[in-house]
Amino acid sequence: MSDQVLETGQPPEGDAPEAYLLNKRDVAAILYAVDIDDREKLIELMEPLHAADIADLLEQINAFDRSRLVRLFDREFDGEILSELDDSIRDEVISILTPQVLHEAVRELDSDDVVDIIEDLEGPQQETILDALEDSDRAAVEQALTYPEYSAGRLMQREVVMAPEHWTVGAAIDHLRATPEDELPDQFYHIIIVDPRLHPVGNVTLGKLMRSRRETMLSDLLEETFQVIPAMRDEGDVAYAFNQYHLISAPVVDEDGRLIGVITIDDAMAVLDDEHEEDILRLAGVGEGSLSDRVRETTKQRLPWLAVNLVTAIAASLVIAQFEVALAQIVALAVLMPIVASMGGNAGTQSLTVAVRALATKDLTGSNVWRVIRRECLVGLINGAIFAVVMGIVGVIWFGSPALGGVIAVAMVVNMVVAGLAGTGIPILLERIGVDPALASGAFVTTVTDVVGFFAFLGLAAAVLL
Amino acid sequence: MSDQVLETGQPPEGDAPEAYLLNKRDVAAILYAVDIDDREKLIELMEPLHAADIADLLEQINAFDRSRLVRLFDREFDGEILSELDDSIRDEVISILTPQVLHEAVRELDSDDVVDIIEDLEGPQQETILDALEDSDRAAVEQALTYPEYSAGRLMQREVVMAPEHWTVGAAIDHLRATPEDELPDQFYHIIIVDPRLHPVGNVTLGKLMRSRRETMLSDLLEETFQVIPAMRDEGDVAYAFNQYHLISAPVVDEDGRLIGVITIDDAMAVLDDEHEEDILRLAGVGEGSLSDRVRETTKQRLPWLAVNLVTAIAASLVIAQFEVALAQIVALAVLMPIVASMGGNAGTQSLTVAVRALATKDLTGSNVWRVIRRECLVGLINGAIFAVVMGIVGVIWFGSPALGGVIAVAMVVNMVVAGLAGTGIPILLERIGVDPALASGAFVTTVTDVVGFFAFLGLAAAVLL
Repeated sequence: MSDQVLETGQPPEGDAPEAYLLNKRDVAAILYAVDIDDREKLIELMEPLHAADIADLLEQINAFDRSRLVRLFDREFDGEILSELDDSIRDEVISILTPQVLHEAVRELDSDDVVDIIEDLEGPQQETILDALEDSDRAAVEQALTYPEYSAGRLMQREVVMAPEHWTVGAAIDHLRATPEDELPDQFYHIIIVDPRLHPVGNVTLGKLMRSRRETMLSDLLEETFQVIPAMRDEGDVAYAFNQYHLISAPVVDEDGRLIGVITIDDAMAVLDDEHEEDILRLAGVGEGSLSDRVRETTKQRLPWLAVNLVTAIAASLVIAQFEVALAQIVALAVLMPIVASMGGNAGTQSLTVAVRALATKDLTGSNVWRVIRRECLVGLINGAIFAVVMGIVGVIWFGSPALGGVIAVAMVVNMVVAGLAGTGIPILLERIGVDPALASGAFVTTVTDVVGFFAFLGLAAAVLL
Repeated sequence: MSDQVLETGQPPEGDAPEAYLLNKRDVAAILYAVDIDDREKLIELMEPLHAADIADLLEQINAFDRSRLVRLFDREFDGEILSELDDSIRDEVISILTPQVLHEAVRELDSDDVVDIIEDLEGPQQETILDALEDSDRAAVEQALTYPEYSAGRLMQREVVMAPEHWTVGAAIDHLRATPEDELPDQFYHIIIVDPRLHPVGNVTLGKLMRSRRETMLSDLLEETFQVIPAMRDEGDVAYAFNQYHLISAPVVDEDGRLIGVITIDDAMAVLDDEHEEDILRLAGVGEGSLSDRVRETTKQRLPWLAVNLVTAIAASLVIAQFEVALAQIVALAVLMPIVASMGGNAGTQSLTVAVRALATKDLTGSNVWRVIRRECLVGLINGAIFAVVMGIVGVIWFGSPALGGVIAVAMVVNMVVAGLAGTGIPILLERIGVDPALASGAFVTTVTDVVGFFAFLGLAAAVLL
């Protein structure tokens, strides 16, 4: 990364797609240093890189180079890099690090970062890392691990900056200045104001604190927007709240409403990014999976979805098989039938994606669900009618049969209305019964559009043309 | 929204999907107040809602209710709501507001929010809003509009807090306290340190400033991670940098590297969210589009993608038509052929989605492109072989023909390897020639898998079985 270039304020290279991309030449130079076992050169080349970029680099090279690089880099390997690494190669890297390097790397990190690393590891590796921590940190990490995965309790950091509501600005500033560095979070932007029972009642920004007179009451400086997050809340909802209410940090409370930690927007942003990744991959039937997974894992991850698709494809074939007589007599039906199914599948996927996305952003609710379903069916009807005319004409020209053209036209309209209905209705139903609509809707919707498409087209053809 | 409930720190309702969802009963009560024209009741019900939730509410009700609600709410309608509204209904709402309400709403906002509102409006509405601004604000907005859409220059706010590098902590604090409120940003968390030419050289957090001795030099307190953003940089890259480097705010510079504004993480998070939305919708062939669009716009948005799909479906049909002789003799071919195409299409979509996502997160680069392509083809080969065996057996049992089973098995393997190749290669090629891979890859990949699937299966069948 070109930290230096940016800091001297040079103009951008104009080449937008290149911005923030790891430089191919830098990567080559680093791998060359590894090849010739030149530790000094390696350290010199890696020094300007941000930990997140080093993690990306490690993800992009192959396992052999990765192992050599990590070994050569040795004591320079720090906790930040570990915390930026993708889960899929993190345990591989941890097993390469010497115990001493791992020890030091882990001790540098905030408790929430250690939790993030440890929760995906196997038992023995977890122990190694827990053993590396100081007692108080270890207790904090183990405490966090008692909250469910993907909860606010896991996401939060335990170091908080708080002040009682009856304090003045001067008292808060003096207290802040007197607190030892290691009891404060790495970065903080607000002071959380609490009542005597330790319930958060508001936020004061450091900017306001600094600009106010020493005798001002903290309770007079509270920010307007303030959200308290229960520790059991799902991290996806936490990310939603940060994005919706433009929060920078938010206090986390236990079941009794007592302040136990704080979540900052950078963590929420990372969650938002993960959730989107999950949605987009699930919609495509990829489940989890990352680019650094190996062939074996990738094959295993994708297999179930392909198996589901095979079942639905066979179901569609069974529908086709009901019309063998018609197909044997009119070969044109075999030629045209995939078009009807394909258009329905596409229209269904369009409706489906809009619905899944709207459910994720909480824009599709009880207040507008019927209006949205009606709209999608109407859109299907109109687009269906337009393509019905087109395909009707194509059918007549291609096969010289107005009846065949009529059949494909009607089947097209039917299938695209059904596509709008299924594409919206299925994700809504899945959400209602507590299944992630991104995960399962696709298979259902294309099954519906395939079955309805083949059935409408071949059934009509059998009735009209035979 | 249950701001009050949260503030008293009550435990969550446990019902995760309900968190942050607009309460159906609240919405009904609000619409009832509109129905009976009870302004006081409406204001009382809306008062606890955050502007972002009011915007969501307006998006979820129908146009008639929306218009009545906005009229009744009248002077209570503030700029925040306007800035949270989806583009698709913002101009509708603006045209409902009385000039005076609009005037006041707009004057409350920061310059970056006004820019965000104004850039999507038509000429006359733009003028109305510009006219409402004070001269200095108007100049700031017009200046921002000279930067291209989706650039950092549009995203930034112009109110910055900066200090020369030779200042001490004490000087910075005194200066901050002496600056009038309206010259400072609404919220700020860092002081940007500049050199004499106004080039940013680093960030100091307010926390560090507050905890340091008055005589400490600002230049001794600089944060480790610091990124300067050129005004012409694409906002997607800006969001990437915030997420990658955990930035909270970053200075924006002009072509000469001089500080001209600042971008904060909440704006970057909103961009990240938009970019994801765009990717997910484009992958599904929905283009833009939101839930509050009307039937007519939605139909128009989806039509082009369906048209592209029709062309590719017809291309696949033309392939089928080449094998009419085989199809006429063996009806089983018509029954089985959609399975081969469908499995290829699915496998291709899996590879495609992983590739598009990896390109967006800059994880797929020159360093690993060949390894990724090889991996995807291998995964296709293995999964293809597994399903080839399954389908071979199904073919034999169903139609009693080992030769037919063999044909479908071989076609399946071929198509799934091609799916891995096309699913990875096509988005990479599109990215290289500067086309958004999310936008166009899907149609290409399914065309390839349809054509190859039908051709391999029917061609082999014609060669082996006839």
